[in-house]
Amino acid sequence: MTRSIGIVETQYVTFAEQEPFQLESGATLSPVTLAYETYGTLNADRSNAILILHAFSGSAHAAGRHHPDDPKPGWWDECIGPGKAFDTDRFFVICSNVLGGCYGSTGPSSIDPSTGKPYGLHFPVVTIGDMVNAQVKLLDHLGIDVLLCAAGGSMGGMQVLEWAAHHPERVRSAIPIATTARHSPMLIAFSEVGRQAIYADPNWHQGDYYHRAQKPDAGLAVARMVGHITYLSEQSMQQKFGRRLQGRERYGYEFQTEFAVESYLKYNGSKFTRRFDANSYLYITKAMDYFDLVAQHGSLAAAFAHSSHIKFLVLSFTSDWLYPSHHSKELVRALTAAGCDVTYLDIQSDWGHDAFLLEVDTMTHLIGSFLDQLAKEVL
Amino acid sequence: MTRSIGIVETQYVTFAEQEPFQLESGATLSPVTLAYETYGTLNADRSNAILILHAFSGSAHAAGRHHPDDPKPGWWDECIGPGKAFDTDRFFVICSNVLGGCYGSTGPSSIDPSTGKPYGLHFPVVTIGDMVNAQVKLLDHLGIDVLLCAAGGSMGGMQVLEWAAHHPERVRSAIPIATTARHSPMLIAFSEVGRQAIYADPNWHQGDYYHRAQKPDAGLAVARMVGHITYLSEQSMQQKFGRRLQGRERYGYEFQTEFAVESYLKYNGSKFTRRFDANSYLYITKAMDYFDLVAQHGSLAAAFAHSSHIKFLVLSFTSDWLYPSHHSKELVRALTAAGCDVTYLDIQSDWGHDAFLLEVDTMTHLIGSFLDQLAKEVL
Repeated sequence: MTRSIGIVETQYVTFAEQEPFQLESGATLSPVTLAYETYGTLNADRSNAILILHAFSGSAHAAGRHHPDDPKPGWWDECIGPGKAFDTDRFFVICSNVLGGCYGSTGPSSIDPSTGKPYGLHFPVVTIGDMVNAQVKLLDHLGIDVLLCAAGGSMGGMQVLEWAAHHPERVRSAIPIATTARHSPMLIAFSEVGRQAIYADPNWHQGDYYHRAQKPDAGLAVARMVGHITYLSEQSMQQKFGRRLQGRERYGYEFQTEFAVESYLKYNGSKFTRRFDANSYLYITKAMDYFDLVAQHGSLAAAFAHSSHIKFLVLSFTSDWLYPSHHSKELVRALTAAGCDVTYLDIQSDWGHDAFLLEVDTMTHLIGSFLDQLAKEVL
Repeated sequence: MTRSIGIVETQYVTFAEQEPFQLESGATLSPVTLAYETYGTLNADRSNAILILHAFSGSAHAAGRHHPDDPKPGWWDECIGPGKAFDTDRFFVICSNVLGGCYGSTGPSSIDPSTGKPYGLHFPVVTIGDMVNAQVKLLDHLGIDVLLCAAGGSMGGMQVLEWAAHHPERVRSAIPIATTARHSPMLIAFSEVGRQAIYADPNWHQGDYYHRAQKPDAGLAVARMVGHITYLSEQSMQQKFGRRLQGRERYGYEFQTEFAVESYLKYNGSKFTRRFDANSYLYITKAMDYFDLVAQHGSLAAAFAHSSHIKFLVLSFTSDWLYPSHHSKELVRALTAAGCDVTYLDIQSDWGHDAFLLEVDTMTHLIGSFLDQLAKEVL
């Protein structure tokens, strides 16, 4: 399990330079660039491609390292590589940064060709559907007609469901993890609080801050801290931090960082501002809030009316209160009603929503077996 | 159940004018004022007094109206009044605003006599223990030696436990509702995010804003929005808002308030800034974070070693994920180990933490019976 894919490089594809890219809102974008990485080798009949979809703050850099001295590998390195859940000895794995993101794909921090300046809030609001439609262009570019599998957790899982519902002819199997077919009002509420924290930062300037010395870091950090809590669970916070004090033995009776959990949140909130764009935070949360396959199709089963050939592995985690298991169970009922072949596991875990990044052994076993079976049938 | 206590008036008691009030931190305060209200009549042997302890953002105004045309009654009016859970035909009910608050009791917005200006961050950090010690002074002032009952939800419940653990000789019975004997790391995390939102507001000025035109309203509103989510549950948000849009039929594809749940949060966040002081938000959350009867006594049972004569009614709510039922169950085990007479109910409710304000019928029945039995024994 310690083998890595090694050194990898982010690649870029640009499309919609002539004919604009049509968005669900009715707006258009031109051109559109997607950053992506690939691991493993595409086989001769181009049938072994797996698309990995990243979560809210992820990037195309899912596995390997960019340099030999890179301190950290890609975000799902434990699951992607030789002999891992997504076995790069057998499969050609692709991951692209979402439209609206800030890791090389076109987003609010990209240059608007009509002004020569960053889009900011002039960037059109995008949806999970738009993100996936852009990924369709990437597959076209790579010459891949049908994915062996689309897989991802959290917002990545929404994209998996979008692929299965709206591009079923291009997907053989799907692994939606710790996700939902429609954002609940609680999820919308947490999104909105994060956005309000950014709006409240005077350095946000209605999204027009790219040329300024001060960025809306304070607001973005607060937004991230809220998010971070929702990714954990009461149990995992108890295990990780308890009521431990940080670097002191007694209460200081002052407004300093005292508890380890405070220190963790502040550190991660601040670190996030060095790697993420506040406007992308707004756009991507908005895309998730809009996601609702039920309303789009009248019922969830109807959303998958043309997906009965797709094999599903649906995974949820018992302590995930952000995307609770009942969302996955509702999905499983709909997929079954639509005639899909569904394997579902509600994995016992204390790690909350973050479990999809942490329960590596269990997922390796489950995903490995699922893909192994699939490979026997298809490859 | 529609009878009200009628018109009530907030009263004030000031103490520690000569000898300073000692705080757990070692600091002192002088003088200290508590705002309080009373409902019903104290009996001749002063044995029918019930102290109601308010939650985080509450005030002494628990029942009745201040004026005939007052739009809203006190915060627990449905539970306090003639024939209600806390029956003012039989009991003398007292409620005081906590030390550190902003509803008439001494807090960071009070004038520091040493400077003639509001304390701001010069106000000493107070604890739940300090709040209760100040209430002891109020009881002394009212000439009440022993409370028939101390009752309250959330932070009010912490004060109930503090009374029972540290002033057992002055309490006959205790009703801690939807609370905990020690703030969990998740609760600390939510507190800290709220504080960080306030710190991030440039109008906060390190707490020195009382003389300024601009208050840290934006930060306080974000803090309150986070809090509001935690008081609800996924189920109650689904029932109250679902994915309903507010005043529109389609997505606007813009960064406006679109979902009903967003509108609710924004409205309540903004409304809160007109009634609450940002510094009090900091101080009171800090007091809750420090609360830990386990660490203070080595074990929770040890905390109640001298409380075996106190009758307890412990209530929790199944959908309360902020103060989950297992906190109450841990408390019940400790109280039982300490030899207390404990009645415990985990009330089936979809309303999350807010249930302690909403499940009026159930609570009226439970609390009414508990106090009725107690009155038969004591009065």
